[in-house]
Amino acid sequence: MFKKVLIANRGEIAVRAIRACKELGIKTVAVYSEADENSLHVRLADEAIRIGPPEPAKSYLDVPTIMSAVEVSKADAVYPGYGFLAENPKFAEIVSKSGVKFIGPSPVTLDLIGDKIKTKEIAGKVGIPLVPGSSGATDLEKALEIASEIGYPVVLKASAGGGGRGIRIVMNEKELREKFPVAVQEAEVSFGDGRVYVEKFIINPKHIEFQVLADSHGNVVVLGERECSIQRRHQKLIEEAPSVSVDESKKKEIEEAVIEFCREIGYEGAGTVEFLMDEDGNFYFMEMNGRIQVEHPVTEVVTGVDIVKWQFRVASGQKLKLPEVKRNGFAIEFRINAEDPDSFLPSPGKIEELILPGGVGVRVDTHIYTGYKIPPYYDSLLAKVIVWGNTREEAIKRGLRALGEFIISGEGLKTNIEFHKRVLKTKEFKEGRHHIGFVEEMMV
Amino acid sequence: MFKKVLIANRGEIAVRAIRACKELGIKTVAVYSEADENSLHVRLADEAIRIGPPEPAKSYLDVPTIMSAVEVSKADAVYPGYGFLAENPKFAEIVSKSGVKFIGPSPVTLDLIGDKIKTKEIAGKVGIPLVPGSSGATDLEKALEIASEIGYPVVLKASAGGGGRGIRIVMNEKELREKFPVAVQEAEVSFGDGRVYVEKFIINPKHIEFQVLADSHGNVVVLGERECSIQRRHQKLIEEAPSVSVDESKKKEIEEAVIEFCREIGYEGAGTVEFLMDEDGNFYFMEMNGRIQVEHPVTEVVTGVDIVKWQFRVASGQKLKLPEVKRNGFAIEFRINAEDPDSFLPSPGKIEELILPGGVGVRVDTHIYTGYKIPPYYDSLLAKVIVWGNTREEAIKRGLRALGEFIISGEGLKTNIEFHKRVLKTKEFKEGRHHIGFVEEMMV
Repeated sequence: MFKKVLIANRGEIAVRAIRACKELGIKTVAVYSEADENSLHVRLADEAIRIGPPEPAKSYLDVPTIMSAVEVSKADAVYPGYGFLAENPKFAEIVSKSGVKFIGPSPVTLDLIGDKIKTKEIAGKVGIPLVPGSSGATDLEKALEIASEIGYPVVLKASAGGGGRGIRIVMNEKELREKFPVAVQEAEVSFGDGRVYVEKFIINPKHIEFQVLADSHGNVVVLGERECSIQRRHQKLIEEAPSVSVDESKKKEIEEAVIEFCREIGYEGAGTVEFLMDEDGNFYFMEMNGRIQVEHPVTEVVTGVDIVKWQFRVASGQKLKLPEVKRNGFAIEFRINAEDPDSFLPSPGKIEELILPGGVGVRVDTHIYTGYKIPPYYDSLLAKVIVWGNTREEAIKRGLRALGEFIISGEGLKTNIEFHKRVLKTKEFKEGRHHIGFVEEMMV
Repeated sequence: MFKKVLIANRGEIAVRAIRACKELGIKTVAVYSEADENSLHVRLADEAIRIGPPEPAKSYLDVPTIMSAVEVSKADAVYPGYGFLAENPKFAEIVSKSGVKFIGPSPVTLDLIGDKIKTKEIAGKVGIPLVPGSSGATDLEKALEIASEIGYPVVLKASAGGGGRGIRIVMNEKELREKFPVAVQEAEVSFGDGRVYVEKFIINPKHIEFQVLADSHGNVVVLGERECSIQRRHQKLIEEAPSVSVDESKKKEIEEAVIEFCREIGYEGAGTVEFLMDEDGNFYFMEMNGRIQVEHPVTEVVTGVDIVKWQFRVASGQKLKLPEVKRNGFAIEFRINAEDPDSFLPSPGKIEELILPGGVGVRVDTHIYTGYKIPPYYDSLLAKVIVWGNTREEAIKRGLRALGEFIISGEGLKTNIEFHKRVLKTKEFKEGRHHIGFVEEMMV
């Protein structure tokens, strides 16, 4: 096992990694920007090294400075967390070449899964269902042909788009003829690349993802699925495990394909394969994330598997040795963000009073405490509240209880705690009928 | 289900009960002494009623004042917690007679289990193993006869003693002849009652207890055992579930006897049957506690059964309906007390900084927060840290991690956090060879 790990991240995920290291007997090195001097990850780590000013580009994204910290601290491994450099193949390569273990997939794998088109090709080959449509850029005639084959509605997507940008829904042939040239023009203006492709439009899909763990000996385990349909502008806000909507035999089928896919690309470490699921329960591959996800705790809570500890174990060469993964009850995670509950705009400030929820069935992952100043430079995630229940109903009630006892205040500070309560009280969420468009519908 | 419950307690157990009520949709009424005005249970409850000055006798033990609070708040049930009035049959009777449900066993049952000798008689009748010895007070001749029958060493106990007082260990016949008259004399002086009885001395026993849940329809469930051998002067400090030392078939046997015992005495609600277990794995009945125990969370964590919610459910007449109780992994609870780690003397103060442990596998039950003043009038329990692991080894490592990140400070404030770490690091605890005398041995 590693002797000393440098955590190349901040916030709750840095705290999460330090906890895993402490339980594994690994020394930890925190890195921090000027703005994070008083963050909990700095306090909990065995060593802490300042790596620059608040701006991410000059600190948490600054590869040479981080590599100096690795050298100075004599760390023998780097834990990247999520965001920042976590899925940067070049960073993974630089770390590896310096003789230090990068805790994640190989640079080659990271490079591959960063290429969405290549990834889809391989996924399709091993039997993972894809969204029907053109496999690449198309012209109007080809688009019309494909659309009539897969059926309307379809979407036009800019090849160079992403994150919900450059997308147009098309209901019928007439609309397609009208909108296609507009979409090309827009793509040229917005992305400097006029290529456009066509895909089936999935109506009110759910976001379903599968947690993977793989070692360097070819063992791949799927720890079941999570549902992350409560999102706003592609940002997940509430995540659950398991999903109430997934059919058990369908799940098995997808899991097997996911395992084959991971073997095919030589995947190592923790990863997540994301799908859309339509109203009939059909799955459509979206992408693979080659890192720990924010929402990994819901899987940990229902399986008892400490995913982050396993990241360290498999990275050190240990074999994946899990007893048959049993799933127990239901877990829901709420991302508590420092943001205006109505506008969703970030709302940093100093935390004057903080009482976190606790007691039966409640887990909190956070880096904040009373007196902590929320820096405005990073994402607005303050804490993750994870609740467990024997049934989903119990988990929802426990969620309302835990959110209700979350006391946080400070000048100018707003959070989305009330938003979460509002979602939990909707008929749609209670009945499991929520989909990725639900928050927008609800907010109207 | 009840509409409104008055919580006749304070501290973490009041918070625990309020949490259960919130998840069940029951309104809560907190009561508080002047010293507890800023306690978390007051803040979390829907209503709060001040019941008197800090002294327990004039507040939490003051039956007429509490009954007024019940009347004023129109509560339809009273939750007693542990300590204070929890096992007072008269209080239970007064509550019941006022048409309000007492959440616990009937006054008759409470009265019975308060009588240790009667309880032992009934326990013996249904096949629960007792400590061999005289069934009541004895004289020297009878004591000699019994001792030679059950074998030395034996203990002489003052009938009016208790809590470890009035006990003498006797190694052989010669010592018994010498010590018997001294024991009688001492008992007369100490308790005004010279009666003495003789019992087999159990060498280095473990404290093993069984968690019971019973409804008003005759259904009794045992939620497995807990081991609470880490104690000092009969005060438990660390509790675990399950015990690593209990033989599975022996456990089944005791559980069956416990169920029969509960049926025999018409037990209702949550309760605990306590045993000593000797080095050969033999059990000896000690007593039954007719209330929730401080250490109930370890059972909740490994079974997923919310014991406190079930207390409310069975009290309201609901049938016990649990799926087959599976036990999952290992849980350990640490009682974090405001006390000097060396002298164990209480050490109250104002909490200036508080960061509670969190993350994977950690539960905290507490009523404290940053800025909270620990009143010197009540027991020194500040928080319970409960950790879970797939294996006992993982739970121990997680315990050390969680205790290590527990940050608490304030002028004059001391806690026993370091004591807990010290126990976890001993070979005896790691190997499960600790017994109820272990802390005293370790402290030398």
